[in-house]
Amino acid sequence: MKLHGYFRSSASYRVRIALNLKGLGVEHLPHHLRKGEQCTAAFLAINPQGLVPALEDDQGSVLTQSLAIIEWLDETHPAPPLLPKDPLRRAKVRAFAQALACDTHPVQNLKVLTRLRELGLSEHKVTAWAGWVNREGLTACEKLIEREAGPFCFGEAPSLADLCLVPQLANARRFGVDVDTFPRLLKAEAAAKAMTAFADAAPDKQPDAE
Amino acid sequence: MKLHGYFRSSASYRVRIALNLKGLGVEHLPHHLRKGEQCTAAFLAINPQGLVPALEDDQGSVLTQSLAIIEWLDETHPAPPLLPKDPLRRAKVRAFAQALACDTHPVQNLKVLTRLRELGLSEHKVTAWAGWVNREGLTACEKLIEREAGPFCFGEAPSLADLCLVPQLANARRFGVDVDTFPRLLKAEAAAKAMTAFADAAPDKQPDAE
Repeated sequence: MKLHGYFRSSASYRVRIALNLKGLGVEHLPHHLRKGEQCTAAFLAINPQGLVPALEDDQGSVLTQSLAIIEWLDETHPAPPLLPKDPLRRAKVRAFAQALACDTHPVQNLKVLTRLRELGLSEHKVTAWAGWVNREGLTACEKLIEREAGPFCFGEAPSLADLCLVPQLANARRFGVDVDTFPRLLKAEAAAKAMTAFADAAPDKQPDAE
Repeated sequence: MKLHGYFRSSASYRVRIALNLKGLGVEHLPHHLRKGEQCTAAFLAINPQGLVPALEDDQGSVLTQSLAIIEWLDETHPAPPLLPKDPLRRAKVRAFAQALACDTHPVQNLKVLTRLRELGLSEHKVTAWAGWVNREGLTACEKLIEREAGPFCFGEAPSLADLCLVPQLANARRFGVDVDTFPRLLKAEAAAKAMTAFADAAPDKQPDAE
């Protein structure tokens, strides 16, 4: 399989963790987002959204959207599972993941921040925007799992929730958010980061890292 | 079951369609978003994200995030299915849904547009922002299904993709987007709107419609 990604892309980072947890090797094809390489005609033919990640399977089919890719990986390579078996628990894990993957990350991604700059917002205001978005999303996530024993977001093994949490916390720090106000999230992050699958997926470990 | 929603909320609209397709009746509990009713302490105790929809099941468990709720409904009430059986097709449907539910809708929702106004953007620029977001998302979606025979987004029956498309097209029109440039999406919308399950879920049919 081939993974079109970018070392700093949170959504690519999620998929890299999933691949590592499943023990699946892929060819990494980096696209430099800040240089606009995701908007070339060649890449738009692969993913018309012009976003990474995109995963090409062994038959050449292209999968897009990180959560859809991860659910597909979980359905086609079930061990270890990234979602619980119980439908209600699955819904809880998915809701946590979507609080970050829908309501947080896309509102502070490169495209949105670039647009804010184009509208004349100062660099200070753009960073404040990204901080606001991260703080709101993570505050809700902290509440969503405050009664979960852990150490991961939901239970004793990583799930789709942890795959979304770890990259988002990295973003939050980058935008100056005081993450010490999220002790339960930090507990899950610590458990995750102790695993090779998470550590090896980190942005600074990627071949295209700057 | 009880559905906390708002007539004009796209995410609530998706869940209403799913409930209708599954033939499930629920008690509707409206929260007026423009009056901030989703930010009361009582509602935050139900959903710490302060967003609708939230679904309370018959045991009092609360489910949040529209896509997570719809996947739960599909897992617990499998007929008619809202996702195909084949993993690759499931991934395609989910990716289409997420292109709207992650990358489009949350970047133009009430909270984001309010924030843009607070940052001093004119009403004209705020509407242009919402138009830009909708145009980008729908342009990608049109490409994603251009080779799908339909009439629905993926095949001869509605799926999670159509549940996301119909509310998003309504938003796009509200923000002045010329949707005639998306013939394949309009074909799917027409097939969907001919169904009672979609028609009855429309914002203007809800008890809290203004």
